[in-house]
Amino acid sequence: MRAGITGYGNLGRGVEFAVKENPDIELAAVFTRRNPDTVKINTPGVPVLHIDDAKNWSDKIDVMIMCGGSATDLPVQTPEFAKYFNVVDSFDTHAKIPEHFEKVDKAAKESGHTAIISVGWDPGLFSLARVYSNAVLPGGKDYTFWGKGVSQGHSDAIRRIKGVKNAKQYTIPIDSALDAVRSGKNPELTTRQKHRRECFVVLEDGADAGEVEKAIKTMPNYFDEYDTTVHFISEEELLKNHGGLAHGGFVIRSGKTGLNGEHNHIIEFNLKLDSNPEFTTSVLVAYARAAFRLNTEGNTGCKTVLDIPPAYLSEKDGAYLRARLL
Amino acid sequence: MRAGITGYGNLGRGVEFAVKENPDIELAAVFTRRNPDTVKINTPGVPVLHIDDAKNWSDKIDVMIMCGGSATDLPVQTPEFAKYFNVVDSFDTHAKIPEHFEKVDKAAKESGHTAIISVGWDPGLFSLARVYSNAVLPGGKDYTFWGKGVSQGHSDAIRRIKGVKNAKQYTIPIDSALDAVRSGKNPELTTRQKHRRECFVVLEDGADAGEVEKAIKTMPNYFDEYDTTVHFISEEELLKNHGGLAHGGFVIRSGKTGLNGEHNHIIEFNLKLDSNPEFTTSVLVAYARAAFRLNTEGNTGCKTVLDIPPAYLSEKDGAYLRARLL
Repeated sequence: MRAGITGYGNLGRGVEFAVKENPDIELAAVFTRRNPDTVKINTPGVPVLHIDDAKNWSDKIDVMIMCGGSATDLPVQTPEFAKYFNVVDSFDTHAKIPEHFEKVDKAAKESGHTAIISVGWDPGLFSLARVYSNAVLPGGKDYTFWGKGVSQGHSDAIRRIKGVKNAKQYTIPIDSALDAVRSGKNPELTTRQKHRRECFVVLEDGADAGEVEKAIKTMPNYFDEYDTTVHFISEEELLKNHGGLAHGGFVIRSGKTGLNGEHNHIIEFNLKLDSNPEFTTSVLVAYARAAFRLNTEGNTGCKTVLDIPPAYLSEKDGAYLRARLL
Repeated sequence: MRAGITGYGNLGRGVEFAVKENPDIELAAVFTRRNPDTVKINTPGVPVLHIDDAKNWSDKIDVMIMCGGSATDLPVQTPEFAKYFNVVDSFDTHAKIPEHFEKVDKAAKESGHTAIISVGWDPGLFSLARVYSNAVLPGGKDYTFWGKGVSQGHSDAIRRIKGVKNAKQYTIPIDSALDAVRSGKNPELTTRQKHRRECFVVLEDGADAGEVEKAIKTMPNYFDEYDTTVHFISEEELLKNHGGLAHGGFVIRSGKTGLNGEHNHIIEFNLKLDSNPEFTTSVLVAYARAAFRLNTEGNTGCKTVLDIPPAYLSEKDGAYLRARLL
């Protein structure tokens, strides 16, 4: 299978690394909005081309892996590229998935391609955990915890405060809440009880630390409903100690069975990731394989992870999987 | 959807309870090998019939849920019933799945029915966790831990020892092994390091406790490779404190990504179940829904959980799932 990459940032690089782990997939080309001569990739012999050249590659690429951002890139690029390629993307703006789905579905159906959107871990593997566990325990209760990891949105919100030069914000699940959920008590948890927020902030020269801390802790929606800790550090320390891309989280469903609901069950899925973008792209590459297979079978249009049989993600065939992994 | 139950033991009762949690499914009939007059079920108005009458119900039941045992019932019953019904079963003898699959596939294809075999949690949800996590991290390492829960096979093995009147054996995962796996160290673990075994034994009058304990601890395959604890208790205590059906376990995959494998990732799926049979049957009922849907679409033959799109397990449609659970 020949894969293409559109967009060569953290995600594009992640796809490049993930492809090397999958012997049945080769990287055909990388497409960028930048001047291709300025983009150095890690795979010798693979061409880097301008994104405007992509449509000329439609017969040389089996699946295009879309590595743009969800805010402005993917809503335009995925439907456009679905005219020329089978595509997978990691569109993660939950509220806009139905709209994105419709646009991609239309383009893919008209051109006879297969698209899989919103692939990654949330949405993605976490969505799978929710759907499986809801189907198995229909009378239960869902809990999703995120972290420990950097929230880009919350870090950006801090950086917009006057007097802040740079900042990173960690979302951290609270152990006592996790323990209560795992105990089967099916607790009602407030926002404050589930996560806390820890901020590392670099001040502009002459900024008032007390004012900045107050502005953070009282910020509506982002921080006011959480217990928030603020640390002021130097820019050097921020770059040295807080540049990581680790993340993770927990999806837990708790539900009862029996004549009178006398038995409780806990289904838990959790991730602990050293690199959020590299893990996301490892999921993307597995679903790229599925998109190609579905297209080969004539199954076109837009799909999500919920529509894909698990066996389609694997390089191995059904008989192997039944004998070894079932 | 009209479901039937064949076999009314712990699994049959579990299906009966699970059906009540799913408003789109109704219980049509229960079939038993016993005299139907002696079998009391918990759902008023549902007929209990002899298993020999089942084939007369083929137009009144959309999916038959097979609730016999894996040792001798299901290898015969599932292929036979697949001639008359869409079927799901929880066949769990891993080594014999390929053979069972072929027999059921032949019967289901010839009759135009859809069968899903080996549904439950292992095989079942644990198989899903293995296949998803292997596809996402192809260069990683798998770990499966079971327990804490009663192993029927190990309890039976103890009961066959001379001087033993009754026994229950718990398989218990070792916390330090779980911690080592979760830390991302990718340890090589021996059998002894992963699980320990705890036995509660009732002696026959006059039996030699020391001899029985030695016979247990040195039993090849079952106990000799494990650290085993033996407690001698009264029959009353065994029945009072060790009659539970709790179980659970952990599937963990650990793997690396990056240019030089510098980032580690942990994918963990775990279950903590108060009732092993009731949870297994909750999974069976969700896959019964999928079997019926697949058959409605003309997709016949034998499948496993690896072949079923997750959305097929849910009562909700694709648009609902994309908007709420993705």
